[in-house]
Amino acid sequence: MKPIKVGLLGIGTVGAGTFNVLQRNQEDIRRRAGRGIEITMVAARNTERAARLTGGGCQIVDDPFLVVDSPDVQIVVELIGGYELPRELVLRAIANGKHVVTANKALLALHGNEIFAAAQEKGVMVAFEAAVAGGVPIIKALREGLTANRIESVAGIINGTTNFILSEMRDKGLDFDVVLKQAQELGYAELDPTFDIEGVDAAHKLTIMSAIAFGIPVQFERAHVEGISALQADDIRYAEELGYRIKLLGITRRSVVDGVEGIELRVHPTLIPTKRLIANVEGAMNAVLVEADAVGSTLYYGKGAGAEPTASSVIADLVDVTRLATVDPYCRVPHLAFQPNEMTDVAILPMSDITTSNYLRVYVNDQLGVMADLTRILADAGISIDAVLQKGARGDARTDIIMITHETQEKNVDAAIARIEALSSVVGKVIRIRLETLS
Amino acid sequence: MKPIKVGLLGIGTVGAGTFNVLQRNQEDIRRRAGRGIEITMVAARNTERAARLTGGGCQIVDDPFLVVDSPDVQIVVELIGGYELPRELVLRAIANGKHVVTANKALLALHGNEIFAAAQEKGVMVAFEAAVAGGVPIIKALREGLTANRIESVAGIINGTTNFILSEMRDKGLDFDVVLKQAQELGYAELDPTFDIEGVDAAHKLTIMSAIAFGIPVQFERAHVEGISALQADDIRYAEELGYRIKLLGITRRSVVDGVEGIELRVHPTLIPTKRLIANVEGAMNAVLVEADAVGSTLYYGKGAGAEPTASSVIADLVDVTRLATVDPYCRVPHLAFQPNEMTDVAILPMSDITTSNYLRVYVNDQLGVMADLTRILADAGISIDAVLQKGARGDARTDIIMITHETQEKNVDAAIARIEALSSVVGKVIRIRLETLS
Repeated sequence: MKPIKVGLLGIGTVGAGTFNVLQRNQEDIRRRAGRGIEITMVAARNTERAARLTGGGCQIVDDPFLVVDSPDVQIVVELIGGYELPRELVLRAIANGKHVVTANKALLALHGNEIFAAAQEKGVMVAFEAAVAGGVPIIKALREGLTANRIESVAGIINGTTNFILSEMRDKGLDFDVVLKQAQELGYAELDPTFDIEGVDAAHKLTIMSAIAFGIPVQFERAHVEGISALQADDIRYAEELGYRIKLLGITRRSVVDGVEGIELRVHPTLIPTKRLIANVEGAMNAVLVEADAVGSTLYYGKGAGAEPTASSVIADLVDVTRLATVDPYCRVPHLAFQPNEMTDVAILPMSDITTSNYLRVYVNDQLGVMADLTRILADAGISIDAVLQKGARGDARTDIIMITHETQEKNVDAAIARIEALSSVVGKVIRIRLETLS
Repeated sequence: MKPIKVGLLGIGTVGAGTFNVLQRNQEDIRRRAGRGIEITMVAARNTERAARLTGGGCQIVDDPFLVVDSPDVQIVVELIGGYELPRELVLRAIANGKHVVTANKALLALHGNEIFAAAQEKGVMVAFEAAVAGGVPIIKALREGLTANRIESVAGIINGTTNFILSEMRDKGLDFDVVLKQAQELGYAELDPTFDIEGVDAAHKLTIMSAIAFGIPVQFERAHVEGISALQADDIRYAEELGYRIKLLGITRRSVVDGVEGIELRVHPTLIPTKRLIANVEGAMNAVLVEADAVGSTLYYGKGAGAEPTASSVIADLVDVTRLATVDPYCRVPHLAFQPNEMTDVAILPMSDITTSNYLRVYVNDQLGVMADLTRILADAGISIDAVLQKGARGDARTDIIMITHETQEKNVDAAIARIEALSSVVGKVIRIRLETLS
């Protein structure tokens, strides 16, 4: 059988990684796929660099539309990033009857419904293992490995940059700004790190996993997105003292509020008991913990970014697409795990409806009755306390009071925090970090 | 589309789990698979119990051959266990043109080559996700998720019984015999636990993973198999003091000996640095760590046994088979990851050729010059020492000397141990446990 022909859109870090791995392991890949996979055309802004990287074995163009329109190309690999241009290219590739492989989580989190509908109608595949958790085959696990299950929740460390920063903050007791600067110097964080540190990238990935886990459309606009830029070294230390580690988690979960089922979809810093396996995922690594009714807890761990780990997933998709390119579309795995006519419309819950435990840190003037005031406010709001830690004054007459609450609905916590902040003995804002036991 | 019809051979723990999960989640499974999956026929020794368990919805027979010969059954699920009868049933099902799903690792580790060849010839699928690591979709990860990679090694905690026993021994400082008895009382270990505690079950699973990872035939007879029954609580404690945890690992790895490539295939107790994620897999849980050239390290964790976790994998296979039942066999994933005509014959290495670090414990009469004798013997054998720990006498004039060696070929260690045991100052046997840094 002749090799299948692949057109590459973009040959940056992941594109070059894909080209290199495909070339280095071409024999092993062919022995598995039963057919060669060949990149025959590459679109790149810098065509000279692209020619150098590819060694002259394929056609280089600067206009990506030439690739998606080429009658020779059977699979288009989109590695440009961003939203609008990739959307246009992917939709045109689909319209031209080509299969698509993409690593673009932003694209799918925002335009996934439109893209999958177009692919469905045209009978082509859009594969996206590389869009979530880099080299970890988590899409395959969720979409094919756990088909027997009613999935209850997915919780993941799905952004390597923030996990690296949090690990460094904890290891070295440094503040966020200092570590971010180091991470940028080391190339672990981008010059504009906003998408990573503010949780947007994690929310893109979580949105995709949520759709697959629960059979709902992608709904990035409904996600609660909170990053790590406000985290202080003190909180990481206090959390450790109490037996917790702070991670930026993406969490999506079935939840029943007032008798109605909804889906939680939220990214925020989270205290996790230190003894949990996922709490010990350090540095730039990713891990996804899935709870499902038959299998129980499973966890998937590996490199969430980088040229070759991401290429590993892009090429796994290429092999899958190569295998199934000619079969009846009905025999393929549906894009979002459930057959398109079998999706549900369970709503994403507003954050105020969600129930979690909380870490609250209140900075107070160390005066008589402060603790009584705090505990009274919490009791009034129906919030019970699991643990309290009071830390000595920092040279002034002030002190940190840290409280771990039992599970409470978000809106109650918001109200209690507002009342606490209004106390004359309280200095500044209350620091609140959500807590998940993941048990 | 009409539901696909499944015949079940055996309705013990896993069979009943499969029936229950399939029934409980039938709507979700149909919404994913695009087609219902229905158990229409069950073979069981105790037909009354089977009728009670299935609630009368399907045909119950006591002769399993009636199921594999039934023209109505499209997929046969083999959950009988053992070797010969399942072999006969599976081969007959294949000959009858039926697809097969099995959880039987012993069967595949011993007769896999014959079974896969028969299936290949007949154009049917034999799926076996449930045979390794229970509910963890590790076969899918290795066979489909990592197709881009040259896999370097697979190391796994793939027997829950032994991991439970080791966890308890460490937690409670108890000896093997005591914990085994407790495990049996709790139902975590079988009445005849030989297959588990002597490493045979782990070696079956490892043999299957090895074939998939490296594209070689299953070769259980070449595996080095060593269990945990000789492990002492002292060694677990000493290992902890030195920063290691002892796990029963199945390890398969590419290795070059004297310029020739071979495959390591071995199950034995192993010291692992405590800080590794896999060292912290406790109780009856399973985890598999895969090293591959593009993706780096990935780890897969979950329940390795039990009715519903195993059923989760059986049903995932049923969904895969349902999807691909009608496609050209060439479009399916090959049974052992590589196309049947693309397997290799890289040899399994004899244990004596393998290189590892080692934990050696020598029990000695605490007399002048003992340490000099020991270190001299190791130096003569070209074995360098990474750490030494000497533990005080236990009420007699004797002492334990523990040495961690650098990496050395197994045959050198064997020779050194023989010389050490011949010393007059040494009491009894040297305890040797291999060590893997897994870095």
